[in-house]
Amino acid sequence: MLTKIAVDAMGGDHAPVAEVEGALMAARELRVGVILVGPEDRIVPELQRHGLTYHPKSRRVYDAQLAKRLSIEIVQASEFITMDEPVAQAVRKKKDASIRVAARLVRDGKAHGLVSAGNTGAVMATSKLVIGTLPAVDRPALSAVFPTLGDHGCVLLDVGANAECKPEQLREFAVMGAIYSRQILGVRNPKVGLMSIGEEEVKGNPLTKEAGKLLREAPINFIGNVEGRDIYTGEVDVIVCDGFTGNVILKTSEGLIAAIMGLLKTELGQTIVTQAGALLSRPAFLSVKKRLDYSEFGGAPLLGTKQIVVICHGSSNGKAIKNAIRVAREFYEAKLNEHIEQNINELGSVAS
Amino acid sequence: MLTKIAVDAMGGDHAPVAEVEGALMAARELRVGVILVGPEDRIVPELQRHGLTYHPKSRRVYDAQLAKRLSIEIVQASEFITMDEPVAQAVRKKKDASIRVAARLVRDGKAHGLVSAGNTGAVMATSKLVIGTLPAVDRPALSAVFPTLGDHGCVLLDVGANAECKPEQLREFAVMGAIYSRQILGVRNPKVGLMSIGEEEVKGNPLTKEAGKLLREAPINFIGNVEGRDIYTGEVDVIVCDGFTGNVILKTSEGLIAAIMGLLKTELGQTIVTQAGALLSRPAFLSVKKRLDYSEFGGAPLLGTKQIVVICHGSSNGKAIKNAIRVAREFYEAKLNEHIEQNINELGSVAS
Repeated sequence: MLTKIAVDAMGGDHAPVAEVEGALMAARELRVGVILVGPEDRIVPELQRHGLTYHPKSRRVYDAQLAKRLSIEIVQASEFITMDEPVAQAVRKKKDASIRVAARLVRDGKAHGLVSAGNTGAVMATSKLVIGTLPAVDRPALSAVFPTLGDHGCVLLDVGANAECKPEQLREFAVMGAIYSRQILGVRNPKVGLMSIGEEEVKGNPLTKEAGKLLREAPINFIGNVEGRDIYTGEVDVIVCDGFTGNVILKTSEGLIAAIMGLLKTELGQTIVTQAGALLSRPAFLSVKKRLDYSEFGGAPLLGTKQIVVICHGSSNGKAIKNAIRVAREFYEAKLNEHIEQNINELGSVAS
Repeated sequence: MLTKIAVDAMGGDHAPVAEVEGALMAARELRVGVILVGPEDRIVPELQRHGLTYHPKSRRVYDAQLAKRLSIEIVQASEFITMDEPVAQAVRKKKDASIRVAARLVRDGKAHGLVSAGNTGAVMATSKLVIGTLPAVDRPALSAVFPTLGDHGCVLLDVGANAECKPEQLREFAVMGAIYSRQILGVRNPKVGLMSIGEEEVKGNPLTKEAGKLLREAPINFIGNVEGRDIYTGEVDVIVCDGFTGNVILKTSEGLIAAIMGLLKTELGQTIVTQAGALLSRPAFLSVKKRLDYSEFGGAPLLGTKQIVVICHGSSNGKAIKNAIRVAREFYEAKLNEHIEQNINELGSVAS
């Protein structure tokens, strides 16, 4: 059976344009089924814009040109949650919101994973409420893969689900991050670091000092404190921190990449000579840009929920949505949650 | 009278090579006097390597070729503190350490500012111990200027002096940072932001929520919460955060800049065509590199001490030391500490 991913079609800043585009790319390029969740009257015109036909009775989407049915369905949801709505209230009141309906599909086994580019707080709250947290896990964490100079990315968590954390939570994050690195990125024995402000154990804040003690005892390949500059070298595979620190790191990195690319573009346009140089060096730039492009990385998986949830940037384009669908499918097929459940349980027996 | 800056000649990773080189550049290029503090038998050979003559009796340095006396002196210090020494013990025991002797020169009015690329913890502890904190200031903060797409840099503090902070301290940092931005970077009415993980007041951790309340009442141009991606846009002039967060931001940025430059270099070397492109676009690259180069920014001034203290990266080269000397001189001549004292005092009367 085809793995099916439910996509909150009304999540992102430009919903449902990017969501429909991403669903289409995924259905065409990947072996995956996609359920677009949202108001039919907003989704169908988007599908038609792409030259597709929708049969309301069967809820199936056809590519008339190729005379082929696409692995896309629509599930109706009449409401949606906007970016600037108070999260708690919106999640409670809007029972027919697209994110909520999508989460129910996943809970009820009609979809195997959830992708949303919506209000991060609302997606997290809905996921916890409707899908639930794994029994062994205290708090789900939002993870992100950072590009590195090495062969694979560095998994950083938490990047925003929990602004404040307890040391025991950082230990859980470490185990979940190591499973992500091993099962999805293929790292055999992932090196796990603790984000701090100096390599020595005595450096840091009370959280890092306490978490360091727990991590040294945990059944992971813990390499000690790391610093901000270690994220990009490829020398460490997983880095744990509280969600405030991780979110600041994520957004600082996004901002700096944008600034450097902007600066380079401006400077390269300054003279005819540098313009010619830019033309010739274009393949090199595009390659670097692609390596740094967050939309290539497929969103931020929420680790520790009972089912797969991947949260995308509000500004996600179609490619980012497609990659998030790919990641959700990979997580499901790699049985990531079963691995997490099992390993966190072992952690419990080690700790107690 | 020439402003004199005391340089801890034994601070950095490659001391005293970078320190002597930086002192020389400063003495030649800027209108400033430099006192190199450290073991004469380590400093003098370095001066000689640059073709200079040292007169031990007068403690003066001559450029024989130009038949000219340079505004450089040496003050003897027999010990020094290494990067990996336990700070508390080293600062207490090594009474003749170069940083300690240099700090005494500043305390006693024989120098107007202190520059060191040594162990940050040791420099801060020595500065607090020997030079002291301004009476109105609770805790000194380490500040750094980040490059931006705008006309001037963004002052971020604290970048590592205080891993944990109270909300009142962030308010003091805001006032000190605004004075830095106004007096040194020439920003008329600096916009001050609070580093958090969302623009809304409710987003953040307990520290940012409490600090936000105080900052809204403070006599500064407070623009509310900012995020990591706002550092580089030039839209905000001063950003305050605790020293853990600031240090992570600083090191993440350094690491990412190095990674991007490394990636670009590798990619540009891949084919003959991109190599040619790189050659033509070289001026553009160098311009971007210079704008992102931390050594151009002149180290991290410690704000809130009784005298001027500028701390440099351990890996500082001569140019970085020279720029730190320049910044120390500018701080002294702009009477930065008097402005801080006065403004923090006003803050007190507003708050009480």
